[in-house]
Amino acid sequence: MSNIKDILESVKGGTLSVDEALLSIKEKPFEDLGYAVVDLHRRCRQGVTEVVYGASKTPEQIVGIVNSLLKNGEKTILITRLSKEKAEIVKRSISFTYYEGAKIAIVGSLPEKDGNGKVVVATGGTSDIDVAEEAALTLEALGNEVVRIYDVGVSGLHRLLSRLDDIMSASVIVAVAGMEGALASVIGGLADCPVIAVPTSVGYGTCFNGLSALLSMLNSCASGVSVVNIDNGFGAGYQASMINHVRIKG
Amino acid sequence: MSNIKDILESVKGGTLSVDEALLSIKEKPFEDLGYAVVDLHRRCRQGVTEVVYGASKTPEQIVGIVNSLLKNGEKTILITRLSKEKAEIVKRSISFTYYEGAKIAIVGSLPEKDGNGKVVVATGGTSDIDVAEEAALTLEALGNEVVRIYDVGVSGLHRLLSRLDDIMSASVIVAVAGMEGALASVIGGLADCPVIAVPTSVGYGTCFNGLSALLSMLNSCASGVSVVNIDNGFGAGYQASMINHVRIKG
Amino acid sequence: MSNIKDILESVKGGTLSVDEALLSIKEKPFEDLGYAVVDLHRRCRQGVTEVVYGASKTPEQIVGIVNSLLKNGEKTILITRLSKEKAEIVKRSISFTYYEGAKIAIVGSLPEKDGNGKVVVATGGTSDIDVAEEAALTLEALGNEVVRIYDVGVSGLHRLLSRLDDIMSASVIVAVAGMEGALASVIGGLADCPVIAVPTSVGYGTCFNGLSALLSMLNSCASGVSVVNIDNGFGAGYQASMINHVRIKG
Amino acid sequence: MSNIKDILESVKGGTLSVDEALLSIKEKPFEDLGYAVVDLHRRCRQGVTEVVYGASKTPEQIVGIVNSLLKNGEKTILITRLSKEKAEIVKRSISFTYYEGAKIAIVGSLPEKDGNGKVVVATGGTSDIDVAEEAALTLEALGNEVVRIYDVGVSGLHRLLSRLDDIMSASVIVAVAGMEGALASVIGGLADCPVIAVPTSVGYGTCFNGLSALLSMLNSCASGVSVVNIDNGFGAGYQASMINHVRIKG
Amino acid sequence: MSNIKDILESVKGGTLSVDEALLSIKEKPFEDLGYAVVDLHRRCRQGVTEVVYGASKTPEQIVGIVNSLLKNGEKTILITRLSKEKAEIVKRSISFTYYEGAKIAIVGSLPEKDGNGKVVVATGGTSDIDVAEEAALTLEALGNEVVRIYDVGVSGLHRLLSRLDDIMSASVIVAVAGMEGALASVIGGLADCPVIAVPTSVGYGTCFNGLSALLSMLNSCASGVSVVNIDNGFGAGYQASMINHVRIKG
Amino acid sequence: MSNIKDILESVKGGTLSVDEALLSIKEKPFEDLGYAVVDLHRRCRQGVTEVVYGASKTPEQIVGIVNSLLKNGEKTILITRLSKEKAEIVKRSISFTYYEGAKIAIVGSLPEKDGNGKVVVATGGTSDIDVAEEAALTLEALGNEVVRIYDVGVSGLHRLLSRLDDIMSASVIVAVAGMEGALASVIGGLADCPVIAVPTSVGYGTCFNGLSALLSMLNSCASGVSVVNIDNGFGAGYQASMINHVRIKG
Amino acid sequence: MSNIKDILESVKGGTLSVDEALLSIKEKPFEDLGYAVVDLHRRCRQGVTEVVYGASKTPEQIVGIVNSLLKNGEKTILITRLSKEKAEIVKRSISFTYYEGAKIAIVGSLPEKDGNGKVVVATGGTSDIDVAEEAALTLEALGNEVVRIYDVGVSGLHRLLSRLDDIMSASVIVAVAGMEGALASVIGGLADCPVIAVPTSVGYGTCFNGLSALLSMLNSCASGVSVVNIDNGFGAGYQASMINHVRIKG
Amino acid sequence: MSNIKDILESVKGGTLSVDEALLSIKEKPFEDLGYAVVDLHRRCRQGVTEVVYGASKTPEQIVGIVNSLLKNGEKTILITRLSKEKAEIVKRSISFTYYEGAKIAIVGSLPEKDGNGKVVVATGGTSDIDVAEEAALTLEALGNEVVRIYDVGVSGLHRLLSRLDDIMSASVIVAVAGMEGALASVIGGLADCPVIAVPTSVGYGTCFNGLSALLSMLNSCASGVSVVNIDNGFGAGYQASMINHVRIKG
Repeated sequence: MSNIKDILESVKGGTLSVDEALLSIKEKPFEDLGYAVVDLHRRCRQGVTEVVYGASKTPEQIVGIVNSLLKNGEKTILITRLSKEKAEIVKRSISFTYYEGAKIAIVGSLPEKDGNGKVVVATGGTSDIDVAEEAALTLEALGNEVVRIYDVGVSGLHRLLSRLDDIMSASVIVAVAGMEGALASVIGGLADCPVIAVPTSVGYGTCFNGLSALLSMLNSCASGVSVVNIDNGFGAGYQASMINHVRIKG
Repeated sequence: MSNIKDILESVKGGTLSVDEALLSIKEKPFEDLGYAVVDLHRRCRQGVTEVVYGASKTPEQIVGIVNSLLKNGEKTILITRLSKEKAEIVKRSISFTYYEGAKIAIVGSLPEKDGNGKVVVATGGTSDIDVAEEAALTLEALGNEVVRIYDVGVSGLHRLLSRLDDIMSASVIVAVAGMEGALASVIGGLADCPVIAVPTSVGYGTCFNGLSALLSMLNSCASGVSVVNIDNGFGAGYQASMINHVRIKG
Repeated sequence: MSNIKDILESVKGGTLSVDEALLSIKEKPFEDLGYAVVDLHRRCRQGVTEVVYGASKTPEQIVGIVNSLLKNGEKTILITRLSKEKAEIVKRSISFTYYEGAKIAIVGSLPEKDGNGKVVVATGGTSDIDVAEEAALTLEALGNEVVRIYDVGVSGLHRLLSRLDDIMSASVIVAVAGMEGALASVIGGLADCPVIAVPTSVGYGTCFNGLSALLSMLNSCASGVSVVNIDNGFGAGYQASMINHVRIKG
Repeated sequence: MSNIKDILESVKGGTLSVDEALLSIKEKPFEDLGYAVVDLHRRCRQGVTEVVYGASKTPEQIVGIVNSLLKNGEKTILITRLSKEKAEIVKRSISFTYYEGAKIAIVGSLPEKDGNGKVVVATGGTSDIDVAEEAALTLEALGNEVVRIYDVGVSGLHRLLSRLDDIMSASVIVAVAGMEGALASVIGGLADCPVIAVPTSVGYGTCFNGLSALLSMLNSCASGVSVVNIDNGFGAGYQASMINHVRIKG
Repeated sequence: MSNIKDILESVKGGTLSVDEALLSIKEKPFEDLGYAVVDLHRRCRQGVTEVVYGASKTPEQIVGIVNSLLKNGEKTILITRLSKEKAEIVKRSISFTYYEGAKIAIVGSLPEKDGNGKVVVATGGTSDIDVAEEAALTLEALGNEVVRIYDVGVSGLHRLLSRLDDIMSASVIVAVAGMEGALASVIGGLADCPVIAVPTSVGYGTCFNGLSALLSMLNSCASGVSVVNIDNGFGAGYQASMINHVRIKG
Repeated sequence: MSNIKDILESVKGGTLSVDEALLSIKEKPFEDLGYAVVDLHRRCRQGVTEVVYGASKTPEQIVGIVNSLLKNGEKTILITRLSKEKAEIVKRSISFTYYEGAKIAIVGSLPEKDGNGKVVVATGGTSDIDVAEEAALTLEALGNEVVRIYDVGVSGLHRLLSRLDDIMSASVIVAVAGMEGALASVIGGLADCPVIAVPTSVGYGTCFNGLSALLSMLNSCASGVSVVNIDNGFGAGYQASMINHVRIKG
Repeated sequence: MSNIKDILESVKGGTLSVDEALLSIKEKPFEDLGYAVVDLHRRCRQGVTEVVYGASKTPEQIVGIVNSLLKNGEKTILITRLSKEKAEIVKRSISFTYYEGAKIAIVGSLPEKDGNGKVVVATGGTSDIDVAEEAALTLEALGNEVVRIYDVGVSGLHRLLSRLDDIMSASVIVAVAGMEGALASVIGGLADCPVIAVPTSVGYGTCFNGLSALLSMLNSCASGVSVVNIDNGFGAGYQASMINHVRIKG
Repeated sequence: MSNIKDILESVKGGTLSVDEALLSIKEKPFEDLGYAVVDLHRRCRQGVTEVVYGASKTPEQIVGIVNSLLKNGEKTILITRLSKEKAEIVKRSISFTYYEGAKIAIVGSLPEKDGNGKVVVATGGTSDIDVAEEAALTLEALGNEVVRIYDVGVSGLHRLLSRLDDIMSASVIVAVAGMEGALASVIGGLADCPVIAVPTSVGYGTCFNGLSALLSMLNSCASGVSVVNIDNGFGAGYQASMINHVRIKG
């Protein structure tokens, strides 16, 4: 769509017929595999490594999509929510590095770290680490330097305060916590950069699979905190990377 | 019920007929006003100032109940959830001190402070003060020394840490907070005494009238925290007083 | 807390006694008004215009807090959620510009626009404009250039696509929508910058006062979208400003 | 019931006794198998292929019902929500074509396509295809021509816009989507025919097993959209077929 | 968008410059009033009377939008959710017929009845009539013949069965009910045409403002039933009209 | 419907034409007032005083319905949920006794008490009395002897136990309680007759307008307890009357 | 408790010492097995066959409780929610008849049928039969004659109307239905006896495991309907039996 | 943090350099294992046995944390929520006593009983015993004498009343109940000490995994009751121990 003008110029210049132009607008930017329409121009449009959401696709579908992307020149491909079982099947066709806790596979080489600064990924407890790693690996796959601060929940403030230097010097922070999710508010009150909060489904009873932490984070009394879906480490990492790559525009 | 044995002894001794005994068990401890059954022996049984819940009673009913209690020798009577409008009507018949924010009236004189130590009542924000005062006044009406620490929410940790001495030296703490309710967890992590958390309905949107704070408090990662109903300053103050009066029992 | 080291150096150098040091750590950064603990060093710590949440404070409390801030040299003060009635009372004591729809008052002069680029504030419908203005005015009070794109909901895609240039050139976008909240996903798919989604309570029936829009935004199929509380235009504007001011750090 | 008049006429004409008439009203239109009352006149009354909901019936019950229908002359029978395990058992007694993803079995031959036009079945993602196929196969079993448009979710508008011709020329559209369910609103805004929206349980966290998509669809800002139960591809297909068979009545 | 091809042809033919073409695509189909982007080509695109949602607009905004539509040749304009108070203000500037119960205003003349057949609008009780009238008037404003069957709830089946002829001969039925919403299922089982169910917020306690009726309708055991938002008489009428105007296509 | 056989016999006997028979089935048992279809044969069919639900009807509609019933020979008519304001308007046309707390009007004379035994109506607190009176007056209007036991909540067991004789000798009990609704379980454990539990919306915070009491009652550990809608004193009284009138059938 | 008077008389008469009396009140009516306190006088007190809830007890605990009851002379014991696996273990120690679908075991012989009339148990669909059988078997174990009417849901009214005679002649009806639960309302409108509604967890998506049916039943527009917990066939059967055994009391 | 003053004194005295002081504040009180930050000074600070939450940690992590604590001189360590499978793996490395029902492991010896009095742990039913044991064992591990009163639910009041002596003489009571959770209110009404209520997830249908009991307990009409998370026996035991150890403070 961003190149409608180019296409119109070609029509005017006679190098493109009207029917060809229409065809071009409709068919150019993706490959239709039947079960999936692979976006081949996304990198141009959004400037990022391509991502495949693995959770509800068959191994065969994942292989098909990744191959379509590789064929079109993609260098780094992130596959998220890829279970160990699927990973083993996909591995027969495609080579990648697999991170079991985070359920992430990275096809190809990691890009250079070209962000504005460091991104802190913090967790309230040990049990939040898998979700945090999904965020951290996403950040690394998108060219960010990551500082991990794990198990620094608010019931023991000493642990968090001892990492104050890291928090104060971050460009953006991803705060990952389950249960009551208070970590986001406390970090939000200490930091002077954007905080992306990730509620996790860790807990039991009225944690309601992360709903309690989500509500807590949405109601944070600290300014500068926004929230993503429960357990959505990828989404937080993706947006944190965008923030860490915001550049001065004319 | 605790004196069934006394009654049985009297039956055996012949000072009480069987029918009188039955009557005694059934009719003794209260006065039935038709619209309310006033418990006249509660003080003996539970050892506290009597309390009248004013929210859903007419001014006439409140006057009737209070008079029944006064007639039976009650010295201090706490009327909770008494709106300003009702208070003005009740005041025509009964003398009391009224606290508008907390919606509390205290009939009679305050008892001596005979608790084990001090009770801290803390709030996250300015808006939580009315609920906190309901707790604080209840505590004072039940014979406790109260230390108020207001507007020390977790988005500005400096404010809370500056009152660390009060928190460390409390016998029991009532933590009152709306929005994300993180105050309870942070105080729970700092204190070495029981913390009663009171979620307030302060906030908007997903605060869901205090539900977010409630869930947060129920999921507190700090041990030693229990929770009462939303905006239930009275309940928290009442239990905190019980805790502050726990005595060594043989 | 960031200057504990300075304080310790002064202790060592003998220019500060131990008790003075302790006092300094505890009492320095705020003024305790009883009903509110005003944070006087926040600007240093977080680099922003000071904000007063007006919703649950009395006009007298607001005047007290604002005067405390002005006395300490604050240049620009944003008062949010200030109803027209309260605004008229506060205005007797303090001078400010009042925006009725957005319920915002700005005390003092607006800062220079020093962000990395432009911030787009978009709405799905006419009814979302008040919340959007809360975001837009917050952004302007924090030094950002704002582009408003209102009533471009997804049921008429033509309207949104006609503003594609603004969307493609933004540094960060605030997407404000009620009802089904699909605007955030569609903008998230078109833009290559972070999108902060604000669900509004606009709608009826199963909109559940914004819950439907909130859930929709949290589940956005577009990457790079994070969410704030329902109707929280201020929170979105505040974080968008932080993102628009992210600088390259060593 | 529609032929009460016929029955009364027969009573009057003396060809039917009163008791026979009563019997006729009560016992005619179904066969009672004990565990199920099979409706044998439904086709006459509603003009459609017969459907058996397989989810909570035993294979033996399904065989019994299907045989009762076949015995009464039914040509095409659709069995929905038939798990692979049950299908294998039922297949020992009855011959049918089984579609594993859609969990549908079709007994007998497909009817002719006699609808007013084409029915489009669209999905937001690859993971919605199973539900979409339940709708598509139901439509085909009821005599409709179906156009499938899969994986055209709103986070990549190009994909959807490239199929605009199909959307503009449909008689009715079934829009199947999980997560935030925005597909229904965007299609509803583009199309000039009724849209039946099917939320799917695809997603995680706050998708709440399809509730988020359902709410989104119910709050659609586009007119002409109605909604069926989560994952109810059959219901959407069934109603879409009814709409595609609406005829001009006197 | 539907005329991209025309525009491209003009570019090729030289009657339109490339920049003019781009402008044409972007600016043609609507007028931007600042607070609202009025869609002026919708009638062409979707073939219906124009609709203005009045609930969250000021009287001034409504007048502005209606005038913009009238200026562009619109003959019939439906204003929904227009309160009596607003209606009186708008009436000073624009002439219309106002229906107080249904909160609907119709500007201009009603179109001819050109649907495929009759549309039945039925209610469970007397209290559902306002919502039903919103549907019925919408249907009439869009060119449909309407049959009203009110207060025929399932607790007195006789009432409903006595209208069986109307139900059996309808092209499409709008079933409006609050409380337990069973009307939709019973009608769905009797009719052989599509049923659009409208839950209403009528009831108390666990009716949860229409949620109970909504859930009941979504779970209808009758096939051929779809559902719109609570109290959304307009949405049901609009879709019913679409269905009643489905024509045989190529 | 119960007299279809009579109608058929008349057809056969020639005293009724087929068309007259059809008409008879369709039009006999009610009068259609346009806004309401008044059931005139209900008393025969269900054997009870007629009831008009007043909550969502206009005073004019109520007058119309009551007059239709009176004209057809009804002796006692119960109007429920009739606000004081409406009652005053209706009273200009119809004579009745009005009970303000219970919002009930009784037209005509009370029937004789012909139940199997006494019905106990008990409440947990003073605030539940209005709902309890709705049940008690309904019971009296339907011919039952009622024993009221008010303010006997479980937090003071003495009060309840003192009324054990009434509880043990009841034919059926209506237990009315808000807050935690424990009254139903305790009474259910003590009584040997059916208990109909009525949750009330009394309470605050997590009482969620009666939802907490409702859930508590549905989960009662005592057998023999069933539940009606929140605040539905009428429904409980109506069913309790049915139970108190169960007779030995062949 | 009912024999306190007897005990007191014995005290007076000297046949019982005070301590023995106290002991008698406290220890008489149950046997404490450590993990369970078996109520041995319940039959006297409530007049029913004893019931053991098997769901959350170990086979060993069930055997212990049943033996304690048998030892005390109980003739018929109903064990509910007994899984097939547990039943097989328990069967090694105790003899009983087991009903697999209903998960019910009956120890001992069935009592005589001594109810006032017949109890109808009806279901909406085939899938509701297991819950209905729990009700029906409970009824039979408590001495009732049961008429089963299965698969008569409201989407095919013919099926239900054909059983009108059974419905009209019942003493009490148990209506069991999942999905939208409309069966209870329709039967409630037809019958002139109490209806106990049992929502079942049958369905998918927004049936929310029976919540939709529960809400529907609580909001029934038919009078005389009360509701028990989801899938609680036992509770409905138990109360229906109580109703069917209501006798005329002095 | 409590010893900042000591550290400052050392700095002033010259026995600690500024950098050493900073290091001391930051690193002293815990050991960072990477996946967990073990708090080694908690016992000093809060005076209790150390606790490890085992639910979401790997056996290896648990071993690492326990060894870190043992190495630092901890005498008694409580591991909660330790499944049987994990317990068997951990047992290969560490010696402890394991309680299967309560899922608790206790490393080391039990401390002396030094509480103010006895703590009663009561349950409503047999099925609540596992959660109750979690509370009871926690209490014993923290130095309390525990009295167990199991299966005394309110549907059979005799059972509870027979244990009145224990209830009246307790210092604090933990009331554990699922289903409708009425036990807490009844005990709260009888006792004169604090009651900590623990809702359990026991039940089915609308028990909603303990939500019903939780709401019931939060709305308790008895004063002096506070609540912890569903199934949180540990949390209740922990706070009850704190209460039982409240001492008179200056």
